[in-house]
Amino acid sequence: MIAVLKRSTTQQQLDNFCEWIKSQGVGVHVYTGEYQTVVGLIGDVTKVDADMMAGLDIVESVTRISDPFKSANRKFHPDDSIIDISGKTTVGGDTFAIIAGPCSVESEEQILEVARAVKASGATMLRGGAFKPRTSPYDFQGLRADGIELLLEAKRETGLPIVTEIMNAAHLPLFEDVDVIQVGARNMQNFELLKELGKTKKPILLKRGLANTLKEFLMSAEYIMSGGNENVILCERGVRTFETYTRNTLDLSAVPMLQELTHLPIIVDPSHATGLSRLVRPMALAAAACGADGVMIEVHNNPQAALCDGPQSLTPEQFDEVVKSMHRILDVI
Amino acid sequence: MIAVLKRSTTQQQLDNFCEWIKSQGVGVHVYTGEYQTVVGLIGDVTKVDADMMAGLDIVESVTRISDPFKSANRKFHPDDSIIDISGKTTVGGDTFAIIAGPCSVESEEQILEVARAVKASGATMLRGGAFKPRTSPYDFQGLRADGIELLLEAKRETGLPIVTEIMNAAHLPLFEDVDVIQVGARNMQNFELLKELGKTKKPILLKRGLANTLKEFLMSAEYIMSGGNENVILCERGVRTFETYTRNTLDLSAVPMLQELTHLPIIVDPSHATGLSRLVRPMALAAAACGADGVMIEVHNNPQAALCDGPQSLTPEQFDEVVKSMHRILDVI
Amino acid sequence: MIAVLKRSTTQQQLDNFCEWIKSQGVGVHVYTGEYQTVVGLIGDVTKVDADMMAGLDIVESVTRISDPFKSANRKFHPDDSIIDISGKTTVGGDTFAIIAGPCSVESEEQILEVARAVKASGATMLRGGAFKPRTSPYDFQGLRADGIELLLEAKRETGLPIVTEIMNAAHLPLFEDVDVIQVGARNMQNFELLKELGKTKKPILLKRGLANTLKEFLMSAEYIMSGGNENVILCERGVRTFETYTRNTLDLSAVPMLQELTHLPIIVDPSHATGLSRLVRPMALAAAACGADGVMIEVHNNPQAALCDGPQSLTPEQFDEVVKSMHRILDVI
Amino acid sequence: MIAVLKRSTTQQQLDNFCEWIKSQGVGVHVYTGEYQTVVGLIGDVTKVDADMMAGLDIVESVTRISDPFKSANRKFHPDDSIIDISGKTTVGGDTFAIIAGPCSVESEEQILEVARAVKASGATMLRGGAFKPRTSPYDFQGLRADGIELLLEAKRETGLPIVTEIMNAAHLPLFEDVDVIQVGARNMQNFELLKELGKTKKPILLKRGLANTLKEFLMSAEYIMSGGNENVILCERGVRTFETYTRNTLDLSAVPMLQELTHLPIIVDPSHATGLSRLVRPMALAAAACGADGVMIEVHNNPQAALCDGPQSLTPEQFDEVVKSMHRILDVI
Repeated sequence: MIAVLKRSTTQQQLDNFCEWIKSQGVGVHVYTGEYQTVVGLIGDVTKVDADMMAGLDIVESVTRISDPFKSANRKFHPDDSIIDISGKTTVGGDTFAIIAGPCSVESEEQILEVARAVKASGATMLRGGAFKPRTSPYDFQGLRADGIELLLEAKRETGLPIVTEIMNAAHLPLFEDVDVIQVGARNMQNFELLKELGKTKKPILLKRGLANTLKEFLMSAEYIMSGGNENVILCERGVRTFETYTRNTLDLSAVPMLQELTHLPIIVDPSHATGLSRLVRPMALAAAACGADGVMIEVHNNPQAALCDGPQSLTPEQFDEVVKSMHRILDVI
Repeated sequence: MIAVLKRSTTQQQLDNFCEWIKSQGVGVHVYTGEYQTVVGLIGDVTKVDADMMAGLDIVESVTRISDPFKSANRKFHPDDSIIDISGKTTVGGDTFAIIAGPCSVESEEQILEVARAVKASGATMLRGGAFKPRTSPYDFQGLRADGIELLLEAKRETGLPIVTEIMNAAHLPLFEDVDVIQVGARNMQNFELLKELGKTKKPILLKRGLANTLKEFLMSAEYIMSGGNENVILCERGVRTFETYTRNTLDLSAVPMLQELTHLPIIVDPSHATGLSRLVRPMALAAAACGADGVMIEVHNNPQAALCDGPQSLTPEQFDEVVKSMHRILDVI
Repeated sequence: MIAVLKRSTTQQQLDNFCEWIKSQGVGVHVYTGEYQTVVGLIGDVTKVDADMMAGLDIVESVTRISDPFKSANRKFHPDDSIIDISGKTTVGGDTFAIIAGPCSVESEEQILEVARAVKASGATMLRGGAFKPRTSPYDFQGLRADGIELLLEAKRETGLPIVTEIMNAAHLPLFEDVDVIQVGARNMQNFELLKELGKTKKPILLKRGLANTLKEFLMSAEYIMSGGNENVILCERGVRTFETYTRNTLDLSAVPMLQELTHLPIIVDPSHATGLSRLVRPMALAAAACGADGVMIEVHNNPQAALCDGPQSLTPEQFDEVVKSMHRILDVI
Repeated sequence: MIAVLKRSTTQQQLDNFCEWIKSQGVGVHVYTGEYQTVVGLIGDVTKVDADMMAGLDIVESVTRISDPFKSANRKFHPDDSIIDISGKTTVGGDTFAIIAGPCSVESEEQILEVARAVKASGATMLRGGAFKPRTSPYDFQGLRADGIELLLEAKRETGLPIVTEIMNAAHLPLFEDVDVIQVGARNMQNFELLKELGKTKKPILLKRGLANTLKEFLMSAEYIMSGGNENVILCERGVRTFETYTRNTLDLSAVPMLQELTHLPIIVDPSHATGLSRLVRPMALAAAACGADGVMIEVHNNPQAALCDGPQSLTPEQFDEVVKSMHRILDVI
């Protein structure tokens, strides 16, 4: 970590500053130039509060030159993490995970039908929303506990591990038989929730926040891991930009970038990123081509399909074709 | 609400679409042009799911022409809401609220000293962080329950109502004697927390999320209000932009804009927005000048002040001067 | 176009408003609801100034329901545009364009060596910067006219058509033998330059601005096309987001989205988007997988490669491997 | 400047890197830690290409610890710059500049009437658009040369210095009698135009780009100043954010921040920032309160005012009230 002090800093202030750094168990190295003084912090600076330091009146800028994440950092764990999913499948390494299912669990018939269909097409896990985060209190909030029951039924019938979102740590007992717990984009920095999930051993599928950097994303993974749960799967699902034709902007360069920074697996959600079913196919193929460890895709199968062919979801037939195309790409790269 | 359908939409699809709309208790008005068909939705469209509709394959775009917020909407409640704070002070209307105190509660001595100082300078409430949302799990997380105890002690001694942040609905019992419960920027869309707060009668100080629009901000207020708690105070605290010299970018035009859209009071937090104590004064004066209903300012008083003059906090002396200057501005406008 | 008027609008104001609309040759359709009045504009509204209208005090919001671009709009020109490049190659349709070369032209030896290498690997055009837009006046500004001379020499030797950036319409005479003129991201809204290019017949490679929407991007294409030059190639090169590990964020969903909106070809520049040579390969493969009409890739070949292996550029060997991999993907989709 | 090298860097690569740095006339200071090697660059690093360096494969990150701007840097010129405007008024120092006038020059009658009105209210300069940058080629592009003629007539009659925008260096001869040449937001990084303006001695009013940082803003000022023209006035006019109720988001914290970074004067344009005339007053007062060196406000006076009270413009009566209110604030701070 490097702190640049202002030209107006007195020798006394500099001495006090260095004492304060050293009192945190970190060494200092001072270089005094014509227009500024640079203080290098040497040793384990993970716990030094850079924001606090940057706010000091004598400080012009603070720069971390090492990453603030540790457990998630590939530097200290060079090998890929492979997350075991209830002994039935894995995420990371050589597997290409395909998580598929409806946006919301709506009925027994719906979830069973979709589960059978996506299994037949090669999905490795079933997804479905029971607790739904909605911008408006007037929008449908999900079947909640009943939705989880229906997912468990689909799991029993098809054998597919299930993934579903948690919004409140108080609901954890409902997730006992859920295989992978999802943390949604709006809760990526719900630190109290992350801490509670860090106390479990469940695989956590952590979605990137709408306007969060990769560093913040990894710090949120770090919250879970520092609590003792190393089973974290990262999910890129688009970030907010000024573009309005697509709901969000899928950041595919996050895939190879994260693979360089961390040993955790990274999957891609083209359905939420674009919000448009007709863009899911090209973005899923692109995710496979750039090296993602898997995809999460919305698939629906309801009578209304005849009417309107669904929001950001594919039909089972479309999904089947996308899976085949992704595998053709995976085969050649 | 206006839905524009694609040119390729068949008459059968259009009929199905209109039926589906009507089944939600909303009227339709169809206008067919050369290149597209426009369907106007007439009546109470608050509960129509615009996202779902926009995702339909036959739909090109959906536009709400009325705001999706109701309880917070000034159209339906033309008069300013005035929030009563434990019978001791108010926010909204003619009052100019001045909420001051340290970023974090650190010790009994610290919080009492700051509380006395800010009261003497004219603060109407005391703030202090007990539960601290931090990007890194390795950073100081606050004194938690002990911090609230210390705040309550300061309240008993000075009589100032207190404001402090909640991060987990499970902690609500600890907030029984807290006068105003703050929801931080990262929890603005923690809908489960908002719902729980909607069941209380406590004044809620809701901070705008780092990358959220005013519409989303008001929808989050709507979550609290639709639960039965109309005591919401909005707080503009800066949004994320590409600028890096300041921590965030304070959006002061949000003040008059929100005053047009909603009857809820709106205060400004220049300390968190800029992250730099030397910018707090100009931004506090600007907030007063543009018509804000109050400010929230960080004030600290610790021995380290001699060393470094604190992060984004003012000293009590600086705060005193800022209060006087704000009042001079309020007097002339 | 739909204008929503405020509740406070008087009948007289409404009548005046409608008269003003009609005076622009556009029909009106008024729907009066309980809380607002909606005015639909019917006919060719391309030339109606929506910004101006939105600013009127009686107007609450204005929404275009048809796209403001005409020449670029796929609705009016359903077939893909195929841009002829000096009779030697094409962009659009079934071709996959591969434009490669150094960021800056540095010397005769450099440009000739790179040109030969990329041609051997299958590049369809040679790129190289002669005029360089730099944030700092102290950074290298390019070889300017001499750089173009060197590119023309490489063209004569290899037969590859050349692409190079213009920054000033006054330089147009220097571009007489250049095959494709590039407009950089910072000049995407340099409307005076676009107008001048609209008077030529040269193919224009228009890069998306750093913080521009697809609609603005197409409106800039429209500037060139409305001047009479329909030979526009769009280039997605990353947008500005809050992420800092990568220089920009490549928006690959722009590719299928633009293909839906416009008949113009769209290519992808993974080198500038990421700023990191090690991310060029995965992003180029992803571009091929999602249906782009081509890529533009930086390739360098200088003695310093031994030292530092170049900024955002690939070596000729790396480029050769990427071309082969892209073709394997193109073959299977 | 600090370069952090990757752990995998060999001693040979490190030596080559240091040689390359030294060959640019800059000293190096190497610190080797357990996980990385840090190279400090010592001396005048203004001309070192940080982007180029950051792209090297052995480099993990590069951080400038001194600002890359020199002529504009307050460190080297502690006193405020005061820009003389044709000997008639000044910008910077103790003056509060008030630049007012219509968005576009429309007719002789219009510009003369507005000019007289704003002069009577205390404006120090007259503004008016002759060349108009518009997103759409179908929108009104301004009266161009004729508009400048009308401005000059208003100048002759009222004695007010005039400010108007340039979009093309080729138009410079038309600006001979213009007092202040404006560079619009979309041309902030039109480096060829900036260079040409650097060769004149005219005061330049440089507007901040829509998505540009303060550092980039100052680097654009540096383009003009390094060419020999130190008469630069900075203008904050709002940046692009995700908010849509206002056209842009006015960044008022840029005012005190820029005053710390540079000696150049900084004025605020609340009209373009908000796009809504009813927000101009509160934002103009806030600008005065936070220490801006002036404001630029749109004022119109046309027969349509009766109809619609203009886009983002104030009427002369409203402007008069705003000027009085700003002066009351300036008097008390």
